[in-house]
Amino acid sequence: MKPIYNLLTLFIVYTSCAQQTESEIKAESPVNIEYTTELVVPDLNIAWGMAFLPDESILVTEKSGELIHFKDGTKTTISGLPEIYVRGQGGFMDIKLHPDYENNGWIYFSYASPEGEGEGGNTAIMRAKLNGSSLSNQEQLYKAVPNTTKGQHFGSRIEFDNEGYLFFSIGERGQRDINPQDINRDGGKIYRLHADGTVPTDNPFVNNSGAKTAIYSYGHRNPQGMTKHPETGAIWTHEHGPQGGDEINIIQKSKNYGWPVISYGINYSGTTFTDITQKEGMEQPLFYWIPSIAPSGMAFVNSDNYPNWKGNLLVGSLKFQYLERLILENNKVVKREKLFESIGRVRDVRQAPDGYIYLSVEGKGIYKIVPKN
Amino acid sequence: MKPIYNLLTLFIVYTSCAQQTESEIKAESPVNIEYTTELVVPDLNIAWGMAFLPDESILVTEKSGELIHFKDGTKTTISGLPEIYVRGQGGFMDIKLHPDYENNGWIYFSYASPEGEGEGGNTAIMRAKLNGSSLSNQEQLYKAVPNTTKGQHFGSRIEFDNEGYLFFSIGERGQRDINPQDINRDGGKIYRLHADGTVPTDNPFVNNSGAKTAIYSYGHRNPQGMTKHPETGAIWTHEHGPQGGDEINIIQKSKNYGWPVISYGINYSGTTFTDITQKEGMEQPLFYWIPSIAPSGMAFVNSDNYPNWKGNLLVGSLKFQYLERLILENNKVVKREKLFESIGRVRDVRQAPDGYIYLSVEGKGIYKIVPKN
Repeated sequence: MKPIYNLLTLFIVYTSCAQQTESEIKAESPVNIEYTTELVVPDLNIAWGMAFLPDESILVTEKSGELIHFKDGTKTTISGLPEIYVRGQGGFMDIKLHPDYENNGWIYFSYASPEGEGEGGNTAIMRAKLNGSSLSNQEQLYKAVPNTTKGQHFGSRIEFDNEGYLFFSIGERGQRDINPQDINRDGGKIYRLHADGTVPTDNPFVNNSGAKTAIYSYGHRNPQGMTKHPETGAIWTHEHGPQGGDEINIIQKSKNYGWPVISYGINYSGTTFTDITQKEGMEQPLFYWIPSIAPSGMAFVNSDNYPNWKGNLLVGSLKFQYLERLILENNKVVKREKLFESIGRVRDVRQAPDGYIYLSVEGKGIYKIVPKN
Repeated sequence: MKPIYNLLTLFIVYTSCAQQTESEIKAESPVNIEYTTELVVPDLNIAWGMAFLPDESILVTEKSGELIHFKDGTKTTISGLPEIYVRGQGGFMDIKLHPDYENNGWIYFSYASPEGEGEGGNTAIMRAKLNGSSLSNQEQLYKAVPNTTKGQHFGSRIEFDNEGYLFFSIGERGQRDINPQDINRDGGKIYRLHADGTVPTDNPFVNNSGAKTAIYSYGHRNPQGMTKHPETGAIWTHEHGPQGGDEINIIQKSKNYGWPVISYGINYSGTTFTDITQKEGMEQPLFYWIPSIAPSGMAFVNSDNYPNWKGNLLVGSLKFQYLERLILENNKVVKREKLFESIGRVRDVRQAPDGYIYLSVEGKGIYKIVPKN
């Protein structure tokens, strides 16, 4: 298929639905912003996730399989990690504290695990406690199957909602045509568990024979962003599309988000794999990016430290190496801005309990966003 | 049986085990205490439970079946309560906020419910949200069966542990010989559920055919005190014994607390119903009261407002109409004090988020414990 068809596809997209596209809302480069970045944890490689402890120290996951505790200017490598399958996009990934961490000490993390039958690995979720410089009380809460040596799409962001449910994403592991639409298979799903790893009895597919009962929604490609909306408590995600078609979604129980049946993206080769962008019974994204920005990490700003950004959504761009600020009105993106252009591949973004926003940038480290003085 | 036998029983108790008894540790009347009480919510009848909202207002349950919201000096009666079976010791009882109430708005309460088959009622647990002056989103999470017209032993204190599990007590409903030792029957139990009412899959009796799977421990009589230890996170309870033998217990999964097979109490008639106070496979209380104080409500002090009381356990005495302060060392009671003697029947005691301790006293209202100036 020639490039002209791709343009035609985009044309149909633009005219056939009310969704915003790159052509409607371009990411602007602000002339001047009031904030700058300050490197607070230097010399990290791919710091996939960050968690901010009550003592103001930081736990950082290195994709290569290291958990680093950064405290009072010093890095300590934490022992007691499970075996990690490091390959392609997989390794040691996200990290998140339990909402009542101060009382129970539970730390949740995601990783590619080689456990179980078959060569390769698949995404797993574990919780453990930090005792000095090692983990204890390790409990594996989920392990996707089957293992595969494919290096794609582990997903694996972790979030808690206001009810204390644990949500996490697992990408479709490079098996576009068999995983995301099949609730009997792992991959291409958002999962919901109780904080102790048990399956809530009102999960949508608990009564479907053969289904993976931890599944909460399906038809996803590779969600590497997940955050709780600070006002509504809803779980928001974003996911990588193929070429074009990265999406933002609000996760609803039992819903099908359409991958790969519907998509605003095209194959990397430039060919299309689906002619349709909408279908009954499948959810439309809240927003999609064309071209893809390769999003990773996601945070709402609700801190008083950034009055002009309050209510905005921040998303890291791996591909274009900036932090995207999305301004929303009634759950629609009305403006986009490129912050800190050329900072590097932004892997994660979080608002910490101190009210500051932190960015993890590949090959550099963790930056804090501070006012220019 | 004559009184001499009772004395003999007590003598055996005193000599045959290392537990503390009234004879060893008498409740002292302190000469002088640094605190006094201030009536903050007047004109209540039997205010069974209290919950302190983030806006510093108070929700109060009246046993007669009313939920009162006390805010800025004004009482509002909240509508939207379930049908309540008011009889004997039963009615509208405890109330507790979800640990993440600020985000999810869930309020939990216990009540005697007439729902289901049979005359009478039994203890139920509901959660709901407060919208203005009415409840919404009502979800009944548990209802004990069978209904009975007996007026005794509804139990029904509610507490959350640090893991977010919901614990509650149901007394043996005046059926001493059939309920507490039978895990297939409700009553005389401590229960554990997820916050959404589902049964954790690692509850101790989930694989026992016929068992009430919400049960966490059994062999209880009528627990009307339950609180989380601020340091260890363990669930502590107390329960009414018959005549003598009120107990304090730390709740452990699957354990049998012995009622009515073992007890330090005797029948109200003065006769004994069991000769033994200890048995293998049954837990010894951490402490027991002889004579009974008729305990209700329970709170640990960990606020800086009461430096001399820090780490102490407070328990209301219905019978002797004071607040008991228990000083503990290594989980042993080493000293007891009677505070605010003759204040009235102390139904509930809680440390509020403002760091002050509040008492609910029958026929009076809610008192705040404040420093004498």
